Amino acid sequence: MGAGKSTLGPELAQRLGRAFVSVDALVEERTGLSVPEVFEGRGEQAFRALEEELACETLGRRPPVVVELGGGALGSERTRRAVSESAFALLVETTPDEAWERVAGSERPLAQDPERFRALYDERRALYEALADGRARDVDGAILALAGIALAPLDETEGDAVVADERVAELHGIAATHVVPAGEAAKTLAEAERLWRALRLERGATVVAVGGGSTTDLVGFVAATLLRGVPWIAVPTTLVGQVDAAIGGKTGVDLPEAKNLVGAFHWPARTVIDTAFLTTLPAAELEHGRAEVVKTGLLAGERLWELPLAEQVRSCAAFKAAVCLRDPLDRGERVQLNLGHTFAHALEAASAYSLPHGRAVALGLLAALRLSGLDDLARDVRELLSPRSADVDPERAWEALAYDKKRRDGRVRLVLLDAPGKPRLDAEVAEADVRRALEALIE
Amino acid sequence: MGAGKSTLGPELAQRLGRAFVSVDALVEERTGLSVPEVFEGRGEQAFRALEEELACETLGRRPPVVVELGGGALGSERTRRAVSESAFALLVETTPDEAWERVAGSERPLAQDPERFRALYDERRALYEALADGRARDVDGAILALAGIALAPLDETEGDAVVADERVAELHGIAATHVVPAGEAAKTLAEAERLWRALRLERGATVVAVGGGSTTDLVGFVAATLLRGVPWIAVPTTLVGQVDAAIGGKTGVDLPEAKNLVGAFHWPARTVIDTAFLTTLPAAELEHGRAEVVKTGLLAGERLWELPLAEQVRSCAAFKAAVCLRDPLDRGERVQLNLGHTFAHALEAASAYSLPHGRAVALGLLAALRLSGLDDLARDVRELLSPRSADVDPERAWEALAYDKKRRDGRVRLVLLDAPGKPRLDAEVAEADVRRALEALIE
Repeated sequence: MGAGKSTLGPELAQRLGRAFVSVDALVEERTGLSVPEVFEGRGEQAFRALEEELACETLGRRPPVVVELGGGALGSERTRRAVSESAFALLVETTPDEAWERVAGSERPLAQDPERFRALYDERRALYEALADGRARDVDGAILALAGIALAPLDETEGDAVVADERVAELHGIAATHVVPAGEAAKTLAEAERLWRALRLERGATVVAVGGGSTTDLVGFVAATLLRGVPWIAVPTTLVGQVDAAIGGKTGVDLPEAKNLVGAFHWPARTVIDTAFLTTLPAAELEHGRAEVVKTGLLAGERLWELPLAEQVRSCAAFKAAVCLRDPLDRGERVQLNLGHTFAHALEAASAYSLPHGRAVALGLLAALRLSGLDDLARDVRELLSPRSADVDPERAWEALAYDKKRRDGRVRLVLLDAPGKPRLDAEVAEADVRRALEALIE
Repeated sequence: MGAGKSTLGPELAQRLGRAFVSVDALVEERTGLSVPEVFEGRGEQAFRALEEELACETLGRRPPVVVELGGGALGSERTRRAVSESAFALLVETTPDEAWERVAGSERPLAQDPERFRALYDERRALYEALADGRARDVDGAILALAGIALAPLDETEGDAVVADERVAELHGIAATHVVPAGEAAKTLAEAERLWRALRLERGATVVAVGGGSTTDLVGFVAATLLRGVPWIAVPTTLVGQVDAAIGGKTGVDLPEAKNLVGAFHWPARTVIDTAFLTTLPAAELEHGRAEVVKTGLLAGERLWELPLAEQVRSCAAFKAAVCLRDPLDRGERVQLNLGHTFAHALEAASAYSLPHGRAVALGLLAALRLSGLDDLARDVRELLSPRSADVDPERAWEALAYDKKRRDGRVRLVLLDAPGKPRLDAEVAEADVRRALEALIE
């Protein structure tokens, strides 16, 4: 009571694309009375019986909804069982003083006296702790908790095997049981085979992956397929990994025919993000991550790149996690995360992958913003990221883009922006315009 | 009405380990009246309103239940929507004459007149056809439909790529786009890599696998991981494949360290079983399959091996599919399918995999039955399968078994039978007894 559930709940529901249901509101709807009136007129016991019935009904709903349970609802054993069996229970963190501040002077029947309120708080706290699957103070925190993402230092006692990027392992003294090459060189079938043969895990054992996006892509894929799937913990150490690559469960390796040709959706059991890793990152690597931060800010409609670095990471990770929770298997709106990436992939392919991904994405964002008619924003992004034009053959780049996107009737489908925060997923653009935008990125 | 739902429904629920709910029974419970009395006393409209409410509530239940809907329930649009959104709709096949035979003389309000009954049947039929996800006349048929298994000839127009065992492709003139070696030689990472690189499929395209268990294991795994997963159709052509290997969604390849070390759970979109393939199978191959048929019969508690071959296949496929539907990720009772296999794997490993799997399973069943104290049954099985003893080093076989099973306190955990049809999943047997049973299989 007073933790801020009725503010956080609807925000969370909106971010997850789900309905929000307050059990108190259902009680009021059902009885035609306010909660204090039900307490007054029918007694707490009658209120609790109705609350239990409505809570259990709501917890069983498909598709699932975000449910706000009143502070006393967990007094019911049936409700507790329904929560632990069929819900992710999120504890909204607060202190007794903050909570009292919020409820003092309200009509809530159990919040009329500060001492009794604090006693109730203490009494209920243990119950909440026992049931909580995660805890948060704000909506980003709630999404991170739901997605299994913790902003915390790596606990080196976790996991039955630790696979680390060789550079990171050395720099940070990680006690790795297995090392893999730094960067994209790790994302090969040969490295996967080496790990499959070397890991020697039992069913249910957990693998920890410590490194950049290539390390987490590789190890996540090995975990997805070893013994038909073992759990894994992702510990991304680069900005790209922390804001993008390690979030959302996509794993895989490259084959000569295509990047990520072989892979799996395998959401990590936990993702541990420690921004301290970023302090040893080469400046160029940090710059690559900045392109993804800008992309995320454009999609979120917030100038996330202006935040302190640790907050950039938190906001971007939460934004991507929410999109991926809404569309885990990439069948719909997750495609928005490709903003600018159609151009980026074409430039990278035309450079035979010598063009760094971050620079390619920065260029791709410029093209996407120009085609969106958002020239002012394109100028801002150019100033922010100042990506050097790509030195590639324009014809080769165009062929790669056209192959990637399968044109129809002389038009190409792209992700564009109607405005910051308003992606358009299936924008159809004339081929000639797309080609002109692509060529403007090439020196 | 009169199709036999109230017989088939509870049987199906029992086989799937789920509750059975009849909406008519719920109506009777709620009103304290029989259905004819509700019709009589309150009118059809009131009955339909209550039926709709209870049907939708039941269709939303978690864990899901087997629901029997009355013949007219799909007249409600809300119920139709709930069925199509959240249920597998099984049409119980019947003819108007069979149905009338069943209901004539009953009190059912809509079954008092044969002409009106037939008109109703014709009227409802189109609605059922439109909603049905599958159809069946008996409980095995119902399970097969739920599991996506059809006993039917292969439709060669299906799928975007067809990968076939080279021997089968030649013998049956399969228009394969890709061939793989016959037998266990196909289950390698090298073959998987060849397919990943050669298949060139788009997201959502379907791969068809035609061949024995090794072919379906390999191609299923390639489908599970190509582009993070594409659908596949399994077309098992051996008896082992049709009664066991191609059922249940386990896929994978062997590595030198272990069989099936790398793999995925990837249930086929469809499994097409054509027993005509069995007529060109070498006699030894058929014999290997018979060992799995006998295993299935022991677990099912029915002498399935005495049925005509096509019915053996149907019953065994349905039995295994039901076990796998109850435990798709192999976390519990699916382990029963390992009856006899602990011994079989040990003998195979000790022979460096030169001992055929079917013979090893036949021997393993003998050991399991003897340890179960079912000596008569062991004799029957020996007569049926007459497996020649294994010519392997007993010490090596024992080491393989002990490594596989991790002993505790001098005891080994095995699947045994309390009686036919009554597997005991976690039987603890003294090491010395297990070792003696193993050695009795070795010549």
